[in-house]
Amino acid sequence: MAVGEGISDLLLPVAGVQISTACAGIKAVGRPDLVLMALGEHSQVAAVFTKNTFAAAPVKLCKQHLQAASATRYLIINSGNANAGTGRQGDRDATATCALVAGQAEVDKTQVLPFSTGVIGELLPMEKLIAAVPALVQAPHEASWLDAGKAIMTTDTRPKAASQRVTINGQSITLTGIAKGAGMIKPDMATMLSFVATDAAIAPALLHQIVAAATDHSFHRITVDGDTSTNDANVLIATGESPLPLIDDSDSEAYQQMLMAVKAIMLSLAQQIIRDAEGATKFVEVRVGGAVTPAEARRVAFSVAESPLVKTALSASDANWGRILMAVGKAGLVDFDCSQVALKLGDINVFSAGQVAAGYTESQGAAVMAEEEICIAIELNRGDYSESVWTSDLSHKYVSINADYRT
Amino acid sequence: MAVGEGISDLLLPVAGVQISTACAGIKAVGRPDLVLMALGEHSQVAAVFTKNTFAAAPVKLCKQHLQAASATRYLIINSGNANAGTGRQGDRDATATCALVAGQAEVDKTQVLPFSTGVIGELLPMEKLIAAVPALVQAPHEASWLDAGKAIMTTDTRPKAASQRVTINGQSITLTGIAKGAGMIKPDMATMLSFVATDAAIAPALLHQIVAAATDHSFHRITVDGDTSTNDANVLIATGESPLPLIDDSDSEAYQQMLMAVKAIMLSLAQQIIRDAEGATKFVEVRVGGAVTPAEARRVAFSVAESPLVKTALSASDANWGRILMAVGKAGLVDFDCSQVALKLGDINVFSAGQVAAGYTESQGAAVMAEEEICIAIELNRGDYSESVWTSDLSHKYVSINADYRT
Repeated sequence: MAVGEGISDLLLPVAGVQISTACAGIKAVGRPDLVLMALGEHSQVAAVFTKNTFAAAPVKLCKQHLQAASATRYLIINSGNANAGTGRQGDRDATATCALVAGQAEVDKTQVLPFSTGVIGELLPMEKLIAAVPALVQAPHEASWLDAGKAIMTTDTRPKAASQRVTINGQSITLTGIAKGAGMIKPDMATMLSFVATDAAIAPALLHQIVAAATDHSFHRITVDGDTSTNDANVLIATGESPLPLIDDSDSEAYQQMLMAVKAIMLSLAQQIIRDAEGATKFVEVRVGGAVTPAEARRVAFSVAESPLVKTALSASDANWGRILMAVGKAGLVDFDCSQVALKLGDINVFSAGQVAAGYTESQGAAVMAEEEICIAIELNRGDYSESVWTSDLSHKYVSINADYRT
Repeated sequence: MAVGEGISDLLLPVAGVQISTACAGIKAVGRPDLVLMALGEHSQVAAVFTKNTFAAAPVKLCKQHLQAASATRYLIINSGNANAGTGRQGDRDATATCALVAGQAEVDKTQVLPFSTGVIGELLPMEKLIAAVPALVQAPHEASWLDAGKAIMTTDTRPKAASQRVTINGQSITLTGIAKGAGMIKPDMATMLSFVATDAAIAPALLHQIVAAATDHSFHRITVDGDTSTNDANVLIATGESPLPLIDDSDSEAYQQMLMAVKAIMLSLAQQIIRDAEGATKFVEVRVGGAVTPAEARRVAFSVAESPLVKTALSASDANWGRILMAVGKAGLVDFDCSQVALKLGDINVFSAGQVAAGYTESQGAAVMAEEEICIAIELNRGDYSESVWTSDLSHKYVSINADYRT
């Protein structure tokens, strides 16, 4: 089940990123489950990771390698096994995976970043990686971004990818990215991975700034169930293969254009995750305006977007606006005058001045809720800030997927 | 659907509390939906209410009347309509309901406390209250606590009640209480009401202390979906009809005994709510030990108890311990060493020292999860505090109940 169409963009290759994939047998035989990205030597990499304290072994090692290495040259990504909850052996296996790549490629192992997604609590099948990695490193690296997007899927019903060309200072710059995930957390605790690359050259400090800001405006704005994963990672790669001069000034127009482009790609990937969320039959924007701060707007928006009662009503196409008000009220705002709140479903005024809006009828609300894409707009009328978050509904299918996952 | 048995206690009458009920037609015709509790003139009343800022009209009025009145003499409770999201007319209707009782009973309207539970966003059918209230006030007040427990039900599948006799300083004291609710929030946004009475005499300040402390150890320890209601109220009544001298010293043994007894009654009521939670097939204790503070223990316990992924696994009787660790990890503890965490399902050691426990087998975990009552015990090994919370599972039935509620 998924909402709307899948990828329609043409996925442009990014100079300085070469890809190969393999069927290593970590997932069912014959399904691609291993991706190697080989980066040009001028590449810079920045990433943000899950804040879950039970971070998986590859997440911990990625952070170490990003601090240690002068230049990341390889990303090795497996699906089918999260290497999480695996103790010291898990740490050793993540290190061994990097060493395997490094040995074949003749780089330092700190120049390799490992990523894993899949079942938790089982050790990585190292014999399968030992068998598959050498050929993967020696391969001609002719796989496409779409191939990579497919190989990192677990319970995703379709790959997520986006691609864009922007012109900065007269130079054509490419950005392409892939992501996997069917919710903020996957049933296997290995929810979301995202890899975005550009051929622009970006100074390391600014690359970090861009990935942090763009994550904040994309993946940090979506929720399926409010749970967070052990394996989340969002990686931004700048290969520097384009003739465009190094972007090293955050006041420059080039920086602003790059930031906008990365935000757009990541927002597209994040929204694709919600459209393919577990059991999703609706794609829902919760927009909160009139907040005192952006954080307050997000707090109210997430309170609505994560409410099981709002989400079951969405699943039933029920215009149960009382539950939306309940979720606004439980967000815990201080000095909050709820008689100022106005609620719209789509373009329909539903509630204002403490009561149901004059002229509102159930059939108007039902018509909005029957759509596949729904906007819930909440006006707090106490400040100047607006924020949107995106979510899916809570359906029978969600329960089935998560109750039956391991059986 | 509900877990375990219903009420088994004999419900003892409490001297100083007289009850009458009626079928006013607010719910379907012929179903009891109105309760009047008449209190003896020495009664003291204390209550805690929902923190939801969209508090319903009766909640706001209760707070005013409790501040204004020298002595509460009547509680008027209707089910079938929450009088929430009803604006100024809702406030007027709550006031008019109190005035109706006060006029018949010849007391001040501030001596009447109103409570409503049921559908949100619809005005109270005042003509039905005007028709029913006079007879209710004039009735012989011979209804039982069980009658009252049934009359306040909405989607509850069974009434909740508990009763206890304790001996304090040689005097036999009675405590009896009823509650309604099938989750922290009901689909109608009018989840939980609880009324507990004793014939002891308790000084007002201490009565407040007791209701706050007992609520904290009972109703604040349960969750179905993490949502909070607009209409929650938990009321403690001390009629002072017993010969036991006034309890007015919080250092006295009588106070401690009373506190223990009220806690026990309220914990029983709270757990009865969980056993009858929407769609519940499991009754689950989440016990967290080794925390630095009680608040930390509760934070971790609720993170587990509210996780949709943990709750769907419970529904499927799946010993998916990875999801429990995920929920511990997302609780956001500072300076948290997750390699110190130990997890037990029932008596079975599942996880410790960063990995699956030696000798643990899936079939052991599956056997625990197959039970109707399950204890998830998490040891943080970083402090001396333990706390328990209670929850239910997230089943298909939960989605059905909440998706189909208004259709």
